[in-house]
Amino acid sequence: MKRNVIVGQSGGPTAAINSSLAGVYRTAKDRNAKKVYGMLHGIQGLLEERYIDLADYITNDLDVELLKRTPAAFLGSCRYKLPEIHENKELYEKIFTILDKLDIEAFVYIGGNDSMDTIKKLSDYAIVTGHTTRFIGCPKTIDNDLALTDHTPGFGSAAKYIGTSVKEIIRDSFCLEYEKGLVTIVEIMGRNAGWLTGAAALAKGEDCPGPDLIYLPEIAFDLDKFSTKIGELLEKKSSVVVAVSEGICLADGKYVCELGESIDFVDAFGHKQLSGTASFLASYVAGEYGCKTRAIELSSLQRAASHCASRVDILEAYQVGGAAVKAADEGDSGKMVIITRFSDDPYQSGTKVKDVHKIANDEKLVPREWVTKCGTNVTSKFLTYVRPLIQGDVSPIMVDGIPRHLFRDL
Amino acid sequence: MKRNVIVGQSGGPTAAINSSLAGVYRTAKDRNAKKVYGMLHGIQGLLEERYIDLADYITNDLDVELLKRTPAAFLGSCRYKLPEIHENKELYEKIFTILDKLDIEAFVYIGGNDSMDTIKKLSDYAIVTGHTTRFIGCPKTIDNDLALTDHTPGFGSAAKYIGTSVKEIIRDSFCLEYEKGLVTIVEIMGRNAGWLTGAAALAKGEDCPGPDLIYLPEIAFDLDKFSTKIGELLEKKSSVVVAVSEGICLADGKYVCELGESIDFVDAFGHKQLSGTASFLASYVAGEYGCKTRAIELSSLQRAASHCASRVDILEAYQVGGAAVKAADEGDSGKMVIITRFSDDPYQSGTKVKDVHKIANDEKLVPREWVTKCGTNVTSKFLTYVRPLIQGDVSPIMVDGIPRHLFRDL
Repeated sequence: MKRNVIVGQSGGPTAAINSSLAGVYRTAKDRNAKKVYGMLHGIQGLLEERYIDLADYITNDLDVELLKRTPAAFLGSCRYKLPEIHENKELYEKIFTILDKLDIEAFVYIGGNDSMDTIKKLSDYAIVTGHTTRFIGCPKTIDNDLALTDHTPGFGSAAKYIGTSVKEIIRDSFCLEYEKGLVTIVEIMGRNAGWLTGAAALAKGEDCPGPDLIYLPEIAFDLDKFSTKIGELLEKKSSVVVAVSEGICLADGKYVCELGESIDFVDAFGHKQLSGTASFLASYVAGEYGCKTRAIELSSLQRAASHCASRVDILEAYQVGGAAVKAADEGDSGKMVIITRFSDDPYQSGTKVKDVHKIANDEKLVPREWVTKCGTNVTSKFLTYVRPLIQGDVSPIMVDGIPRHLFRDL
Repeated sequence: MKRNVIVGQSGGPTAAINSSLAGVYRTAKDRNAKKVYGMLHGIQGLLEERYIDLADYITNDLDVELLKRTPAAFLGSCRYKLPEIHENKELYEKIFTILDKLDIEAFVYIGGNDSMDTIKKLSDYAIVTGHTTRFIGCPKTIDNDLALTDHTPGFGSAAKYIGTSVKEIIRDSFCLEYEKGLVTIVEIMGRNAGWLTGAAALAKGEDCPGPDLIYLPEIAFDLDKFSTKIGELLEKKSSVVVAVSEGICLADGKYVCELGESIDFVDAFGHKQLSGTASFLASYVAGEYGCKTRAIELSSLQRAASHCASRVDILEAYQVGGAAVKAADEGDSGKMVIITRFSDDPYQSGTKVKDVHKIANDEKLVPREWVTKCGTNVTSKFLTYVRPLIQGDVSPIMVDGIPRHLFRDL
């Protein structure tokens, strides 16, 4: 490379997104990029000319290792959708003026569907205007809902955390006996795609029965059938554990978490409060069966738990970052790096680049045949797909009993 | 030892309680106990003659290591308070008939305040009736609220998990920028004692600012002062993170989580819903400042997260279990094992036994001078006390990407 590189992070944070950033930085430096800039808070920050020189933060090899183990977007993130080019040409001119000023050869954007839309528009604009900056997308999302790539960096670590935590919750839930039993509902992220919720099945093994029921957002949720199943399970066992996606919907498309709305719970300040999916279902089950219930939201812990990251995931995220810089250096633009899987066992994967026009805004859902017929669990095919992605650990660098992250003044 | 040992687990589960069980088993076997029985679900299960022979589950050294790493009570737990002896002598006779039938020399009970009350009553009854079984208590609780012992096994691992998770949440909370800022409220266990909530301060370090505010249940909570502090913080920074105990109360003794009650939120089944402390405060702050808020409950994850256990904690839990058996073998009864601290740095500790009459039902709270004057953080003395207890890791035994536990049919 002869000029500079700029890299940004966009969308929801993950435990692996900074490993991709480390991969971008290292490969850019290896390929003699003069400077590697980081946009603060993505394209939105760039528009305000907020950026850093990454060399000020990554001063040695240990810093690279720390960065790989630092959760959430090191550079800060944004949720910003670029307008169509014809809607606001001035905005594009502004971006390219800044890129010219910084002498940018390669622009790498690490993110999900919206970020790939950004890459598409910027590379289209560059082609139309004859601009030489190259634009490459780097996949990232815990939701694993990006099309064309076998899976997305960030998903494996979140799945490992979910499998581990659900297993611990199952153990916990069997400790105390309640007269009418205990039903624990665990709410997991992924509004439209059930990849993360399905990962709860990873808890199952020779030493653990796994969750009793798993409800993915791809399958219409039936409250009566759910209630019947809970009743049958409570006849047989003292503790029932259910994993649900935050985004499960009834057949008419209404979110289960909206059902609490009918009660018109308005808080002291006049705001309508939407109870979560798990807490609605827990209260529903308590009402139906008079048993003890618990609602547990894995919340942002599931996307930020670097201390429980998957080695395969962190390494692939790093590779994908490097592959993005390599592609730009070799002349590609308007492309996204994807991961291809050659084999499940032994697991083997590699990277390729694909035209970003084929990717943007397409949501990859869990195939119906990877969910059991009754719709309350995933099949062995689902597990064969996910299992390789959670293998191996990335030992945190512990300082005084707590994992160390790479410092940036927050 | 010439006869048999029986061991039970009681109260809320922890990540270290099974390490104490492993210590009891190993020391009993080393001291030639014939059999080591485990009560299923504590004294309540024993009354129904539900117990196992631990040798059926622990068949080799690897099983001992797995047991140390298995979260939540392996034997099952209970919350059962024995009546006074004069209130129900028949119950005591029943227990001792069962103990005689099993030829029990030593009865070890791993638990918190209520469990020590059980040890006290059973040993009193044995003295009065001239019974030879010896009764020893083994401290356990994530809450760290037991008197006389420097700290309780289970606390260190929970504190490590809380420090680690709060640090990851802080990173996560700085990723996305919101126009009016983001306030994240993290709810932590410990209804009356603030040891766990204070452990959120462990997140602070050279690489992390730590939580902005920490509210312990020992200090009366003032909603107006809280609101003013949040306002001041939102002026200065885009993301504010607050750690609160589930049990914070107003000066008049009313729980903060009960304040939501005034809204009379009744669910579809006529049950009054109590929103949690964090979710009440998050909705309060949203109402006051119009900013984005998040409520995160660490829930049972904080007591079951064996994958993030402290090595000091797991080792001490094991030692305490062994010390209980040793004490019984040497003739003690009506005693609880305690941990004494000889030095903070380098950390050194040992075990002793204390008369259980001096312990039962006394709650150890965080001293006022370990909380800052304004009551919204802990002091360096608190951290000097907690820091040694979270040191070192216990690498999980990973099978197919997920930690393996010792199997028992749940």
